[in-house]
Amino acid sequence: MDKLHRNERIGALIKILSDNPNKIFTFGYFTELFNAAKSTISEDIAIVKDTMEKFGFGIVETISGAAGGVKYIPLISKEKAKAFVRDLCTRLVNPDRIIPGGYIYMTDIIYSPEIVNIIGKILASQFVGLDADYVLTVETKGIPISLVTAMNLNIPLVIVRRDSKVTEGPTVSINYITGSSKRIQTMSLSRRAIRENTRSIFIDDFMKAGGTANGIIELMREFRNEVVGIGVLIETLKPDNKLVKNYISLLTLDEVDEHKGVIGIEPSALFV
Amino acid sequence: MDKLHRNERIGALIKILSDNPNKIFTFGYFTELFNAAKSTISEDIAIVKDTMEKFGFGIVETISGAAGGVKYIPLISKEKAKAFVRDLCTRLVNPDRIIPGGYIYMTDIIYSPEIVNIIGKILASQFVGLDADYVLTVETKGIPISLVTAMNLNIPLVIVRRDSKVTEGPTVSINYITGSSKRIQTMSLSRRAIRENTRSIFIDDFMKAGGTANGIIELMREFRNEVVGIGVLIETLKPDNKLVKNYISLLTLDEVDEHKGVIGIEPSALFV
Repeated sequence: MDKLHRNERIGALIKILSDNPNKIFTFGYFTELFNAAKSTISEDIAIVKDTMEKFGFGIVETISGAAGGVKYIPLISKEKAKAFVRDLCTRLVNPDRIIPGGYIYMTDIIYSPEIVNIIGKILASQFVGLDADYVLTVETKGIPISLVTAMNLNIPLVIVRRDSKVTEGPTVSINYITGSSKRIQTMSLSRRAIRENTRSIFIDDFMKAGGTANGIIELMREFRNEVVGIGVLIETLKPDNKLVKNYISLLTLDEVDEHKGVIGIEPSALFV
Repeated sequence: MDKLHRNERIGALIKILSDNPNKIFTFGYFTELFNAAKSTISEDIAIVKDTMEKFGFGIVETISGAAGGVKYIPLISKEKAKAFVRDLCTRLVNPDRIIPGGYIYMTDIIYSPEIVNIIGKILASQFVGLDADYVLTVETKGIPISLVTAMNLNIPLVIVRRDSKVTEGPTVSINYITGSSKRIQTMSLSRRAIRENTRSIFIDDFMKAGGTANGIIELMREFRNEVVGIGVLIETLKPDNKLVKNYISLLTLDEVDEHKGVIGIEPSALFV
């Protein structure tokens, strides 16, 4: 490639780093791509670093040593996260969302690319230091936010199934009892999906008593995998003695009053 | 915000446009954000445009008029797409992937954020001109690639369920017969999920005879929604008289020979 202007290098650097969060690029990669000296790239990266921080896009980290290079960690500031969660509440309290039985219609929100993008970034920001190997979820509604969390952490997504599939080879299945309605449920995962002695983060859209999260921890024991973090979009206020500890949620749902048409939902403690 | 250097503005412009594909930003948005004159922003955008094209990141389009502004269309070049599809083949032909029954283990690939990111961009590149309102998929394996396609097109994702859920209100369900194994299957979708008189693109991981795609077209008729595009990651070579026409696929699977340990998979015609 011909010599580039600094503007163009900065632009391309930001695009490449931003498209590949938490991935380490060597300086050599950029000296070759841009046909530029290492000192030039170092100066470029200093500008990229400042720009990312100035606009609250996240952190650019330079790692020294043989395996060194540069990586971009997308972090959402506490303020941006809080404003987003407040805005989400405003959308969710709309009484038109009430579904007979006391449920809230929210698939339009949890499948919306724009919203899912931010939820995934907020969740990834919470778990970025945990050195996890996988993001886990159980089908179906939590998949979009889990995928974006995995994208931002740059680790594989693993989707636990409700029934075992012949197309995925030998599977490990467990039965577990849901925490709230006390029904027996099954979850199952291909033996190949997880390496032993690894760590994972469980992400889901909703947590009531925590039966599913508890089931996931049990299932992961069979894979010698430790669940080191749990994040959900919405938890319910009751029961307050959840089956799992150490989880985070963005929103807390109190109750849905069908007759009065009132949805009681608020930012969770972390985002007030 | 204080006056910024051009470098910083270019960097921030690329980050914002890149994080919001196919979304129109007004010039006013940037003049305010950067505290800069409109002429300055115009010059910045010209540089952004050149940089994006020079590196094959896609197209930056300026739209004139009252509803005008600038948007970024992430396009993957034919050459990059072909190279990626070839590389995917190389990974998939590994005989360790063969699962008893003649299946291929590939969830590690279709859930990998890095790979899904590119598959979604390739699919979006194919459908960007169709002016669709939704990306549709049916649970479960096609969800990650569908979400990334939807993100790149900046339109909502809609996930059709295998069974109807009480939590999503009134649903429309259809029974359909799978094209290959002739089994009766159900698919169902909340009445609220789709507005009438809209267009959609159906994305899935796998197509054999096209029974599922055909079922989706039938289901969408109930919503007065027209399926204007169909894209799958892998289609099978046989049967060649699929139940739907006008679909694209990235890969074509011929056969899996369990005994010889051979997987016959190749780039589809579009990507040879």
